[in-house]
Amino acid sequence: MIKFFKVLKKSKKSKARLGLISTPHGKIQTPAFVPVATKGTLKSLIPYQLKKIGIQAAFVNTYHLVSHPGADVIAAAGGIHNFSRLDIPLMSDSGGFQVFSLAKRNPQGSRNPEGSLIKKADIRGEEQPLIVKISDGGVKFRSLYDGRLIEFTPEKSMQFQQKIGADIIMAFDECTYYPAAHAYSRMAMIRTHNWLNRCIAQNQNLKIKNQNDKSKLKNNQFLYGIIQGGTYEDLRKGSAKFVTSQGVDGVAIGGVSVGETKKEMRNQVKWVSEYLPEDKPVHLLGVGHIDDIADLVKYGIDTFDCVEPTRLARLGQLYRISNAQIPASNLKEIDILTGKYKFDLSPVDEDCACYTCKNFTKAYLHHLFKQKELTAYTLATVHNLCVMERLMTNLRKAIAENKI
Amino acid sequence: MIKFFKVLKKSKKSKARLGLISTPHGKIQTPAFVPVATKGTLKSLIPYQLKKIGIQAAFVNTYHLVSHPGADVIAAAGGIHNFSRLDIPLMSDSGGFQVFSLAKRNPQGSRNPEGSLIKKADIRGEEQPLIVKISDGGVKFRSLYDGRLIEFTPEKSMQFQQKIGADIIMAFDECTYYPAAHAYSRMAMIRTHNWLNRCIAQNQNLKIKNQNDKSKLKNNQFLYGIIQGGTYEDLRKGSAKFVTSQGVDGVAIGGVSVGETKKEMRNQVKWVSEYLPEDKPVHLLGVGHIDDIADLVKYGIDTFDCVEPTRLARLGQLYRISNAQIPASNLKEIDILTGKYKFDLSPVDEDCACYTCKNFTKAYLHHLFKQKELTAYTLATVHNLCVMERLMTNLRKAIAENKI
Repeated sequence: MIKFFKVLKKSKKSKARLGLISTPHGKIQTPAFVPVATKGTLKSLIPYQLKKIGIQAAFVNTYHLVSHPGADVIAAAGGIHNFSRLDIPLMSDSGGFQVFSLAKRNPQGSRNPEGSLIKKADIRGEEQPLIVKISDGGVKFRSLYDGRLIEFTPEKSMQFQQKIGADIIMAFDECTYYPAAHAYSRMAMIRTHNWLNRCIAQNQNLKIKNQNDKSKLKNNQFLYGIIQGGTYEDLRKGSAKFVTSQGVDGVAIGGVSVGETKKEMRNQVKWVSEYLPEDKPVHLLGVGHIDDIADLVKYGIDTFDCVEPTRLARLGQLYRISNAQIPASNLKEIDILTGKYKFDLSPVDEDCACYTCKNFTKAYLHHLFKQKELTAYTLATVHNLCVMERLMTNLRKAIAENKI
Repeated sequence: MIKFFKVLKKSKKSKARLGLISTPHGKIQTPAFVPVATKGTLKSLIPYQLKKIGIQAAFVNTYHLVSHPGADVIAAAGGIHNFSRLDIPLMSDSGGFQVFSLAKRNPQGSRNPEGSLIKKADIRGEEQPLIVKISDGGVKFRSLYDGRLIEFTPEKSMQFQQKIGADIIMAFDECTYYPAAHAYSRMAMIRTHNWLNRCIAQNQNLKIKNQNDKSKLKNNQFLYGIIQGGTYEDLRKGSAKFVTSQGVDGVAIGGVSVGETKKEMRNQVKWVSEYLPEDKPVHLLGVGHIDDIADLVKYGIDTFDCVEPTRLARLGQLYRISNAQIPASNLKEIDILTGKYKFDLSPVDEDCACYTCKNFTKAYLHHLFKQKELTAYTLATVHNLCVMERLMTNLRKAIAENKI
């Protein structure tokens, strides 16, 4: 049997490391950036385009997939890989982050993580809190899509994720609001730990149950436990100690991207660094700006997921690097919608070898974005993801050379 | 020098023929369907995807390109092929159709040809007719985009189309409203004929002027004259006789798709059939339903442009053929948004070899369309255009075998 995770090289300068994650759908060279394919499709790119770019893995969201098209549709199709033809390693989250973050944002009528405006009229019972009840049992809430009362429990999250069938799945966690008091953060953390044990048990049960039914569900899913603890050092450290000592295949750090400053976010990773496992992969949830990535690999993070490169692309914010060195503090975005690009016949980045930069000028991209042409989003996404892949390649090279 | 148009084979059964159009950007086997890339991009497909499907040529709209990004931007980029990287033969229209059809539709606040709603607030001077003046000189109108006063004349249309630089360009014509009286249709037709002569003269002038300046503009553009005459047999025949006797490289039939019934449309083609040139290619503007195409090749039409397959795709209307015979009266659309497809794990068309049908189920496409995912439009467009290409291949085969 192939080992799920191998450390290939440790840097002499920090906890940064090169690794290899092996799944039934392919391998991931780490550190790796994992773009988000929320609803089982990477917005604006069809599967062979991901391969062209060199995307190693993608991240799907259980909350959204359970709402649409529903876990049963995906299970009937033989799992998310078959359904979406994303023939690469896939990770799914537990649904917890969306349950909490969407519920929190919604009363203000603000934007959901997809960038589309949540219309007040879309939500039944909007006057009441959308989360109906959080208890040790689980979470009851109203669907963002149609107001239905939905319940997520650790067991349900596991069942959903088994039906979806991603290679790497996450334990169900409570992601606290920001700012949250120490007492509440502690309670939520303890709950998350209890839920982790229920997830492990449920996952074992389902595996045993499905062992002899190959037609049914995936048997080769790897479960990550999630470190929580909010903005408090003692809680983060306690959570790290607890989670890493459980029977999990990997560890994720959650809740660091919700509302805090960059410095606080980095601290939360730094605090737990010494407790992170040597022999298991570590994922940082929801962080993906390249300077954060370049900094946080030093604390032992192997994989990162984030909507940033793809969302910025769709907004016309195109990455530009003056040189491809790491640390990449010289990464900036240009706003292609700015009028000055109307006649600019140079590519977004002269040094970029992506399809977009090799073929198109800023003037053309400006035109497509101004006219809201669908190809604008495709070409911009190709570019931003290519830049991310190039920077991650450089980052791995820098670790190999003990420069980080 | 390579001949612009060669007839390769004439059917023994009708005026249907196989031909080859040769341009500096490639060849077109005729009869051919030419999808529309209105603003210099085929909505939802990037250039290499067109090649994968086997698209032989595309059609761009001068009115839209002159409005955005502007003819000067395209000229500065070295022409539309360079700008858009659509490295296939391109045709541009004269702007006439849009000037008249957009102006006509606009006061009702209806949809523009792109399918997006024209908001009343978008248009300055909305209370006045948008066409300010039609005269023998040309047309003055207010831009759909920003309300600017714009003038199109035969000379300006030629200048714009030279700057855009498509391989095949169209003379400026007046496309009458439907229904239009005989007297008005006659006047508009005469105007169109006069404009044709001014277009030919202007095109000659520009060619001579640019002959020694290779950096400037394309020298290898082929000019089509447009047959008009509305719904009247005598006018259509008269127009055909006039246009085909002028110094044009090809002939187009215009105004047949504006508001008439299918039968009337087919009659207008039938009437002029006997006057169509033996040695020049014939284009039918704005017609593209496969049963119309299969019928109208019999009257000597070589190329057809239409937004239908791509627009239907974006609306979730996917082509389905029970068998790929010609005449293809068995072509239907399925509405992928219908609830019954939620669990349908079969492809749109079992017999279709396109990327979409080879990889994805109706359930997945239903999900993408329901969620308005950008990849929905790409996958649907790939499918509808592949079906069109397959049917056109069959149609050419049927002509080769004297079956049409």
